[in-house]
Amino acid sequence: MQSLKQHFQVPYSYEVFFTERLFAPENRVFADFVQNFGNPSFRKKILFVLDKGITDIQTELTAEIVNYFQHHSPADLAPEILVLPGGEVCKNDPRFYEEVIRALDEHGIDRHSFVACIGGGAFLDMAGYAAAISHRGVKFIRIPTTVLSQNDSGVGVKNSVNYLGKKNFLGTFAPPVAVFNDYSFLESLGERDWRSGIAEAVKVSLIKDISFFTWLESTADAMNQRDKSVMIEQIYRCASLHMQHIASGDPFELGSARPLDFGHWAAHKLEYLSDFKIRHGEAVAIGIALDSVYSHLIGHLTKEDVDRIIHLLKKLGFAIFHPALAENDKINLTNGLNEFREHLGGQLTITLLEQVGKGVEVHEMDFDLIKKSVDYLEQIA
Amino acid sequence: MQSLKQHFQVPYSYEVFFTERLFAPENRVFADFVQNFGNPSFRKKILFVLDKGITDIQTELTAEIVNYFQHHSPADLAPEILVLPGGEVCKNDPRFYEEVIRALDEHGIDRHSFVACIGGGAFLDMAGYAAAISHRGVKFIRIPTTVLSQNDSGVGVKNSVNYLGKKNFLGTFAPPVAVFNDYSFLESLGERDWRSGIAEAVKVSLIKDISFFTWLESTADAMNQRDKSVMIEQIYRCASLHMQHIASGDPFELGSARPLDFGHWAAHKLEYLSDFKIRHGEAVAIGIALDSVYSHLIGHLTKEDVDRIIHLLKKLGFAIFHPALAENDKINLTNGLNEFREHLGGQLTITLLEQVGKGVEVHEMDFDLIKKSVDYLEQIA
Repeated sequence: MQSLKQHFQVPYSYEVFFTERLFAPENRVFADFVQNFGNPSFRKKILFVLDKGITDIQTELTAEIVNYFQHHSPADLAPEILVLPGGEVCKNDPRFYEEVIRALDEHGIDRHSFVACIGGGAFLDMAGYAAAISHRGVKFIRIPTTVLSQNDSGVGVKNSVNYLGKKNFLGTFAPPVAVFNDYSFLESLGERDWRSGIAEAVKVSLIKDISFFTWLESTADAMNQRDKSVMIEQIYRCASLHMQHIASGDPFELGSARPLDFGHWAAHKLEYLSDFKIRHGEAVAIGIALDSVYSHLIGHLTKEDVDRIIHLLKKLGFAIFHPALAENDKINLTNGLNEFREHLGGQLTITLLEQVGKGVEVHEMDFDLIKKSVDYLEQIA
Repeated sequence: MQSLKQHFQVPYSYEVFFTERLFAPENRVFADFVQNFGNPSFRKKILFVLDKGITDIQTELTAEIVNYFQHHSPADLAPEILVLPGGEVCKNDPRFYEEVIRALDEHGIDRHSFVACIGGGAFLDMAGYAAAISHRGVKFIRIPTTVLSQNDSGVGVKNSVNYLGKKNFLGTFAPPVAVFNDYSFLESLGERDWRSGIAEAVKVSLIKDISFFTWLESTADAMNQRDKSVMIEQIYRCASLHMQHIASGDPFELGSARPLDFGHWAAHKLEYLSDFKIRHGEAVAIGIALDSVYSHLIGHLTKEDVDRIIHLLKKLGFAIFHPALAENDKINLTNGLNEFREHLGGQLTITLLEQVGKGVEVHEMDFDLIKKSVDYLEQIA
């Protein structure tokens, strides 16, 4: 008897809208999307889930959403607007995602209805996970509120929570149905959060697009002065490169395709070693500096290019060294590589730089050269 | 500023192998698959999760698997072979899927490693869910051990567990990497389980393939006498139609495409009303009878065709009526339709029959005609 062979493709589409004051009554972008999604004649339901870090600052946000839906009514707004704590803590305790599931069940959110989530990257990860596993996936709308989530994680296809102390252990690949990047959420960001997300733009420019890197060099001063149009263009270009990478490769990482993880092996370890006091973007900046120096030491990158990269990171206000990198370095950095290897599923693949704008993959790293890179960063920090 | 539009397709492939005595040392089907999957030079890990309902009967199964891997060694067998209770109970309590997650974490099963699950449909649902949410999906191999899971659910793309008393509330769409339909597991099935799964074959033949229906009529006696080749061919043809339906439509039901749910609205309710004492296939047989009579009453199906369908169901040993159908019928059946509407996301879509071999969708059902159909079935039962 022959075997039966199954093959099919699942198509995914979503749009990332750039806007300001998303729920101002005169802004129709959100209402038009919800109204026209799927079958326009079919009445939809929508549940909002909000990051408390946002509602603490924008105390009128809940009222604005209610008012917006009274004005436009593109869908039946659930009578409850759920507000939960954001940040990494919301991924650690199952009670938070269970609370999202409780609310979407209680308000009859089915596979043709929406959960709209407003918050930072960790919060979107958590609520996105709840939406993805309920009814095998309800429609999820992301409204990211940080630079990092607007230019990187919020436009991607992943969600996750931590489990038994293991970061991102539970999760799925589940694209959103739409993303709304609202600049006005960024205005209230503190200095560190404003800067932190730019590290992902530096990263993607280094492995993908030299013209974007040059543009980042030329706009660094304006960025530091919180120039709005520069920040928006940075997010747009970074998000675009990130999305192209997803679409052109293996979006759900079913094979051995690598995510955009230049600078990330050391960053992951550093976040952990600092007990998450270092923000992700800050750790990535150090990881970029480290892997750039290493790329030079193995002959892939010129000294001039390393200087150029470190100059840009410093100009943007990033530290390029952290004391934790040099403490117990043999154990910590070797463990960092091993954990990254496990994370990848057994075979180590590290993206380094061949030149500015072009990444290259290697499958091993030499500890002595890593150590030499760390020492160099400590000297010039 | 323009929006960014994302579009990509995710390809899925898997093969359903038909075999016997899968872990007999001379049977290379399983070893060859594992060895050649993905990168053949890459050493993989595999964790087995077994339905206690099977190991209670096949007491040597664990030893056979260990012996098989000593013989062939296509992957590193996890030192633990996990045995958990099967049946609907395993989907009710989160401790069971958490136990699968615990084991796959403990044994280092990553996204390039396998969880192989041996069991009935509910057990595969539960373990498949655990595999799908761990590391955003580890490779899952299904080895279904019942007629129903070999010809229907086991070759499909879904997993699920129950949550807070709601059936299949949590789950994902996650195709397996392979399915092994081993006939020898069917030999120990009792009368009711042998028969029960055949209802899905009758169902799919009625809405898709008249020649398969005719074949089922011609082989019913042999099937009742537990003819092996007839059972294998039935499973092959039913699985094939089911897989074609998935691949030709909207595999992950992202739009409003309907699953193969002829006869299922009443079946779901009946299972619940009988406190799951009626097996799924037995309930589906009654649901098929009900919706066939109803299809006739609204003028879609001739009386001769209804007789022919009911004759086949009876010949196969199915009851076509259950007293629970007639109790509180107004409330129960109306609720049944409403629950099915909710399950579909607001718009009711019921598949009925236009003729034998051809389904037709309707968006409402008339209670008086349902009642008339129930009365008719009670009379001729």
